[in-house]
Amino acid sequence: MIYVIKIGGNIIDNPEKLKDFLGHFAGIEGHKVLVHGGGKLATQLADKLHIPQQMVHGRRVTDTETLDVITMVYAGLINKNIVADLSALGCTSLGVCGADADLILADKRPVKEVDYGFVGDVNLVNGNVLFGWLSQGISPVISPVSHDGHGQLLNTNADTIASVVAVALSAYDSVSLIYCFDKMGVLLDVDDDSSVIPALNEDRIEKLKNEGLIHSGMLPKLENAIQTVKNGVESVVIGHADALPDIIQGKSGTKISLQ
Amino acid sequence: MIYVIKIGGNIIDNPEKLKDFLGHFAGIEGHKVLVHGGGKLATQLADKLHIPQQMVHGRRVTDTETLDVITMVYAGLINKNIVADLSALGCTSLGVCGADADLILADKRPVKEVDYGFVGDVNLVNGNVLFGWLSQGISPVISPVSHDGHGQLLNTNADTIASVVAVALSAYDSVSLIYCFDKMGVLLDVDDDSSVIPALNEDRIEKLKNEGLIHSGMLPKLENAIQTVKNGVESVVIGHADALPDIIQGKSGTKISLQ
Repeated sequence: MIYVIKIGGNIIDNPEKLKDFLGHFAGIEGHKVLVHGGGKLATQLADKLHIPQQMVHGRRVTDTETLDVITMVYAGLINKNIVADLSALGCTSLGVCGADADLILADKRPVKEVDYGFVGDVNLVNGNVLFGWLSQGISPVISPVSHDGHGQLLNTNADTIASVVAVALSAYDSVSLIYCFDKMGVLLDVDDDSSVIPALNEDRIEKLKNEGLIHSGMLPKLENAIQTVKNGVESVVIGHADALPDIIQGKSGTKISLQ
Repeated sequence: MIYVIKIGGNIIDNPEKLKDFLGHFAGIEGHKVLVHGGGKLATQLADKLHIPQQMVHGRRVTDTETLDVITMVYAGLINKNIVADLSALGCTSLGVCGADADLILADKRPVKEVDYGFVGDVNLVNGNVLFGWLSQGISPVISPVSHDGHGQLLNTNADTIASVVAVALSAYDSVSLIYCFDKMGVLLDVDDDSSVIPALNEDRIEKLKNEGLIHSGMLPKLENAIQTVKNGVESVVIGHADALPDIIQGKSGTKISLQ
C-alpha cells in the first residue's frame, strides 16, 4: 500500500500541529508521499512585500511577483523545513516541486472570465520516478508548484496534485489517498463533530446530495474523491490530521471507495 | 566522467548570462551536477523585509530570519527556476538542498570570535544517492543549504558544497570540478585577462605563492582546489562561465591537478 497524504494551511500554519503530524507521518510503515499546501505564510510574505493579493473563487490570482512568493514559500521555506524535520524523525524524504525530475507537467490555465495568471492545470504526472524514490525508501514531499515544460513554473492546487499523484502511483501498487483537514470526516450534521459518516460510495453520495445533507463546501471534495477512485485509487479518506494513526488503521475519517 | 559545476552570483544575478550558461550546461553529454550560490537576491529580499544583514570575512551572519530568507531564495526561487529552465532545454534535473534525501549533513559552526548563527560546516555527503540520480539520467541541482540531521537547516558555502560533492562522487567515477567565476582562469597578471595559467599543481602553486604572484583572493581557492584533488577529484578547473564548452574540452580555464 502507498499512502498519499495531503495537509493544508490548518496544519502548516501551526508549528505544534505540524510537528505532531510529521511524527505520525514518519511513523507510517511502508511507502508514503506527503503533499503540502501553503497556508497563510505566502499571503503574509506578499503583504510584507506590498504585493497585492487577489483571491477569486478561493483561488489565488498569480502574477509574476506572486509566483515568486509562492515558489519561495511553498517550494523553499515550507518544503525544506518539513524535509529537515522528517529527517530528524528518521524518515528520509525528498522535497520536490512539479518541475523536479519533470514530475508534474501542467498547462497555464486559459483565460476565460478570470485571468488567474500563472496557475497550472495538471496534465501529466511521472509516476515512475516517484515510485522509484519510494522503492529506495525515500518519501517524496511535494509542494504545489508545477511547470509547463517550457521553463514556466505554475502555482497549482495542492488537492489536485495529491489526487493526480495518487492516480499515477496506482499503476504501481494500491494507493490510499488521505486528505487531512480540520474535521474528523464528512459530517452528517455540520454542527455535530460526532456525526462522521464512516464510508461513502457514489450511490450514497448521490443520495445524500439529493436529500440536501451534504454541505456545499464538501460537495466538490466528494465529487473529486469519486473521480479519483474511479481512476484507480483504492480509497480516498477525508479526516483530521490529529487522527492520522487511526485513519491509517481504518478507525477514523470518511472513506470513499467504489463499493 | 562526472562534471560538478559551480556557479555564483555573477551568473545568477544576470538572467541573460544564466540562460546562456544553462544552455551550455544542458549541452554537456553525460553525468553532470550543478551547484549554485545565491547572488544578490537574498540580500535584496532581506532589505525589503527590513532584516539587517551582516557580513563577516565575506560570510553572511545567519540569524533565524535570515535563514528563512536564504531557504526561500536559494532552495526555492533560484533552485526551482533553474530546474524549470533546464527541463525546457531537454535536461531533466532535480533541485535539492542538503536536507533532501539526507544529502549533506553539517554541524552548526561553533561560536569563536564570531557567531555566524545558522551556518553549517559539512561533515558528510551521501554520494550514493547522488550517483543513483545521475545513473537515472537526472542532473542534481544543489542549493547551498544543508542540515544537521536534527531538524535544523544551515546556510552553507556553495564553493565548499561543490568540493565535498565532487569528492563524494569520486568514489563512483572520475570527477572534474569546475568553478565558474568572472575571469578566464587564474591570472599571472591580475590586470591582464590573457595571462591565464593553463595548468597548476601543488609545487607550481607553492612556487608562485613564494614569488608573490598569486592574488590574495585567489590563494584560498587554490589551496581548497589542491585539497580537493588530494581527496580524489581528478581535476579542479577555474574558469569563466561563458567559456564552459571550451573548459569541458580542456581549452580554457586553469586546471589544477595532482601532477
